[in-house]
Amino acid sequence: MPERNPNETISNILETFEAALKSGDTAAAIALFQPDGYWRDLVAFTWNIKTMEGREQIAAMLDAQLNTVKPSKLKIADNETATEADGVTQAWIAFETGVARGTGFIRVKDGKIWTLLTTMTELKGHEEPKGSKRPMGAEHGARTDRTSWKEDREAEIEALGYEKQPYCLVVGGGQGGIALGARLRQLGVPAIIVDKNERPGDAWRARYKTLCLHDPVWYDHMPYLPFPDNWPVFSPKDKIGDWLEMYTKVMELNYWGATTCTSARYDEAAGEWIVEVERGGEKLTLRPKQLVLATGMSGKPNMPKFKGEQHHSSKHPGPDAYRGKKVVVIGANNSSHDICAALWEAGVDVTMVQRSSTHIVRSNSLMELALGDLYSERAVAAGMTTMKADLTFASIPYKIMHEFQIPVYNAIKERDAEFYDRLEKRGFMLDFGDDNSGLFMKYLRRGSGYYIDVGASELVADGKIKLKSGVDVVELKEHSVVLSDGSELEADLVVYATGYGSMNGWAADLISREVADKVGKVWGLGSDTTKDPGPWEGEQRNMWKPTQQEALWFHGGNLHQSRHYSQYLSLQLKARMEGIPTPVWGLQEVHHLS
Amino acid sequence: MPERNPNETISNILETFEAALKSGDTAAAIALFQPDGYWRDLVAFTWNIKTMEGREQIAAMLDAQLNTVKPSKLKIADNETATEADGVTQAWIAFETGVARGTGFIRVKDGKIWTLLTTMTELKGHEEPKGSKRPMGAEHGARTDRTSWKEDREAEIEALGYEKQPYCLVVGGGQGGIALGARLRQLGVPAIIVDKNERPGDAWRARYKTLCLHDPVWYDHMPYLPFPDNWPVFSPKDKIGDWLEMYTKVMELNYWGATTCTSARYDEAAGEWIVEVERGGEKLTLRPKQLVLATGMSGKPNMPKFKGEQHHSSKHPGPDAYRGKKVVVIGANNSSHDICAALWEAGVDVTMVQRSSTHIVRSNSLMELALGDLYSERAVAAGMTTMKADLTFASIPYKIMHEFQIPVYNAIKERDAEFYDRLEKRGFMLDFGDDNSGLFMKYLRRGSGYYIDVGASELVADGKIKLKSGVDVVELKEHSVVLSDGSELEADLVVYATGYGSMNGWAADLISREVADKVGKVWGLGSDTTKDPGPWEGEQRNMWKPTQQEALWFHGGNLHQSRHYSQYLSLQLKARMEGIPTPVWGLQEVHHLS
Repeated sequence: MPERNPNETISNILETFEAALKSGDTAAAIALFQPDGYWRDLVAFTWNIKTMEGREQIAAMLDAQLNTVKPSKLKIADNETATEADGVTQAWIAFETGVARGTGFIRVKDGKIWTLLTTMTELKGHEEPKGSKRPMGAEHGARTDRTSWKEDREAEIEALGYEKQPYCLVVGGGQGGIALGARLRQLGVPAIIVDKNERPGDAWRARYKTLCLHDPVWYDHMPYLPFPDNWPVFSPKDKIGDWLEMYTKVMELNYWGATTCTSARYDEAAGEWIVEVERGGEKLTLRPKQLVLATGMSGKPNMPKFKGEQHHSSKHPGPDAYRGKKVVVIGANNSSHDICAALWEAGVDVTMVQRSSTHIVRSNSLMELALGDLYSERAVAAGMTTMKADLTFASIPYKIMHEFQIPVYNAIKERDAEFYDRLEKRGFMLDFGDDNSGLFMKYLRRGSGYYIDVGASELVADGKIKLKSGVDVVELKEHSVVLSDGSELEADLVVYATGYGSMNGWAADLISREVADKVGKVWGLGSDTTKDPGPWEGEQRNMWKPTQQEALWFHGGNLHQSRHYSQYLSLQLKARMEGIPTPVWGLQEVHHLS
Repeated sequence: MPERNPNETISNILETFEAALKSGDTAAAIALFQPDGYWRDLVAFTWNIKTMEGREQIAAMLDAQLNTVKPSKLKIADNETATEADGVTQAWIAFETGVARGTGFIRVKDGKIWTLLTTMTELKGHEEPKGSKRPMGAEHGARTDRTSWKEDREAEIEALGYEKQPYCLVVGGGQGGIALGARLRQLGVPAIIVDKNERPGDAWRARYKTLCLHDPVWYDHMPYLPFPDNWPVFSPKDKIGDWLEMYTKVMELNYWGATTCTSARYDEAAGEWIVEVERGGEKLTLRPKQLVLATGMSGKPNMPKFKGEQHHSSKHPGPDAYRGKKVVVIGANNSSHDICAALWEAGVDVTMVQRSSTHIVRSNSLMELALGDLYSERAVAAGMTTMKADLTFASIPYKIMHEFQIPVYNAIKERDAEFYDRLEKRGFMLDFGDDNSGLFMKYLRRGSGYYIDVGASELVADGKIKLKSGVDVVELKEHSVVLSDGSELEADLVVYATGYGSMNGWAADLISREVADKVGKVWGLGSDTTKDPGPWEGEQRNMWKPTQQEALWFHGGNLHQSRHYSQYLSLQLKARMEGIPTPVWGLQEVHHLS
């Protein structure tokens, strides 16, 4: 028998799969998967963000969902061809459900599906007005009492939140809230984004002055309006601030700056939130149907209760006021390294206090070995688009993602061996994650514990940034910090680069401890590694998907996640607004409070 | 002998052509052209914008330029294939000169070059920092007294125009000045854009409230940062204003709003301009090496000297204040139609006074029949890029462009015959240009004389907008307008939609009548048609190229021209700043003063 070409392999499986799905033959469907195969679904089948691991979970999902989902038109995506390498045949796929169109990715090993990704692209009848569906702008013809674009926009701004309630309220106007706001606008979901800062981008502008994004530009595009070709690889914070401000304006988002939410309460009878808001001094009540907390995946600053001259890293302005002084920085992750380096550059006597081990990876090595295939100029030249890169990354089940990552970080360890050696000789405590899976896994599991080295590590290795490691702070005296090894550091300023609490804390503050506890911990995979307790969840807790509190959502993450997952969150919200049935499969259970 | 395939045909000609150019064998080079062949060059060979018409002109150019230009590496562009249709073989080409890289397009008929386009893409060693050459943003490593992006940008803003003189001053900050400013910024040419309005985009915001662009979005992209996919086909004026403002910000242009230039004088000895400027009340003197007038191709408003309540169309606010009143609008081109329609929609009694015939073309017909192949969603879907569309349009020599246009407008005439018939029955005077070549030729020749119908013509045909045609205004009485046929129209307001004078007028006002006369008429092709007197020029007079006044340039036009020709103007300015020799061939002679 001649070998099948990759297109045939995939097409045959998809055909059999579709037949099984259409006839509700779950047994036939799961027989197409490897026994430990994975199906990751972003909203299309589960109205949830969910990975089904193994045939049993897949069968359970299908039994629950097939009746309403009604999948069809499963095929290799237009203009795509299946490929084969290392015994894995893979392809971009397209499909429809009763209410939506979807995109996905399939990997087949030994004739069976190893991984399947299904994602919702658009709701039928609610397609975004772009390309051939873009608005006309000018309505041709003549009509009495026509209003202009400006008059319509001004009327909308004036009415929304007053005579007209937003369907969705997004609390927090960083890149997360703005990306989601842009998607909701395109879907015609009336939304207001509120932020305590005056202008979009201010949260970036307010950070320490030397801050630049540590992720490269290809990873950072916002939806709809990618950065131009001349945009820097690593955006300086004020430049990204300006971009977000401009983006908010031209995407016509309803952004309320200088606005704080003081309380929120869900009125179950009315099916809406009652949110008390202060907008530039004026108090008002908003009644949105949906509430999204996009207050930053980093949550609230962790700030020990010491006395003395001190601030959290989120309030650190940069080095200028501290020239010639002595500064102690508690913590040894990204912010600490950036702040220490800028202080040293300004001639400050600076000591870093490292309490536990840190994962360090050099920016160049990360760009070349970890990101290069998906997010780089090289990837762009090879035809990789932002959408394909996002979906490729999304197609690796979290359960096995570390297996893909470990070899990358082993290569980095080898490549930069001499560098790591010098750091360790200086006493710096290194790690590569509990299972040596490196940076992304640390980010996904706990959102902390690493530094992408852009220069500070050399200063540590050289002793220019002084280091005290394996110690904690015991006491703050009038002019010094006392450490757990009994040593004492003179200090004019102490900076707490000690990270952030759970995002759950925002819900407790804004709504109630009760609701926060009902929803439970936000972020992390349940990997049973440091700061990410089990049991295994398979997806990030509570992010971009339904929670145990009706009509409450969490959104955020880095620019990549804000871009990509805002798509699925916006579709979930739109479907609810339009009254499209959204039966959620596998609503997340709560195992940890915060 | 077997037929050659198109690639072979083109490659063979290019090979022979390059050999002739390299050996300085002009006779051999021109023998490759049709006797009446055309070579249009944008800066690459002529350091000018120039069409050589026929072998004699081509020979003269080559004899003068070859020694310094040193062309090489002439070939079909990478990833392109020659095509053949209707006896014409054509291809995208690439080439180099001693100092630059270029792109072009060639059409071969009967084995000889019929049209050749050569354009300069970039100067060697001065490539724009984009794609793989984009800036890093964050400078990795550590260095004492590092400054941030924001500090650098603020220092630049503070110094430029005060401690540091701009190399180039751009007067006028509409889309023309902004597009040019963006290109100059990428090329590292210090430039200031001054505009009398406070914010970028204000010139659009100040127009009548119903104004939308009449050109569609695919035609209107700015350089570097195309509109997103959801941008309206026809931008409302305030939306385009917001875009220009944000564009100016994120492209980091040095834009001085609320600034007027009161005088400019060229100091030949110093080789610089002395420009007196008032910036928000403060008087200062700028000394740029190059002065660009980007004050709008439309020049100064034509405003008859009548008494009474009246304004020029450029000052017309829209209909709201005139509900229930009587308005007479003088003129029958774009602005007049837009203003009349908005007035009628608001319940105003409005009369249009048509003094001479107008070319009317319906927006849909124009989009489908005239623009669709290059600028449309259909073109995008077929792989057409903005750059290719611009270059394709540029590749048609002006001398024969009307031959390409006439059939298009004949088709439009037929398609919309019933519509034109109704207009004429109402007494409206129609034309399609002196030679029936339609809208683009009218625009290129005289920049006036047409209306792209988006609805007003139906109101004229229906008699809803009243029409007096074939008459002129004789006198304005206290409450009426007296026309040349003796009739009298009651009027509470008279709007002069009477067009604009020559751009040359700006030079006279800012510099001197002497310099304005030295430079002569701006715009037009010398087509010897209405408002575009001969002799034939072959290119638009004085636009984007050297003029008879050293270091004085004109820039502008619609969004397409502002985008495309800013590239060639910016390269000419950059070359001069870098001291690269720029021997100009065929500097334009002056036949008309204004």
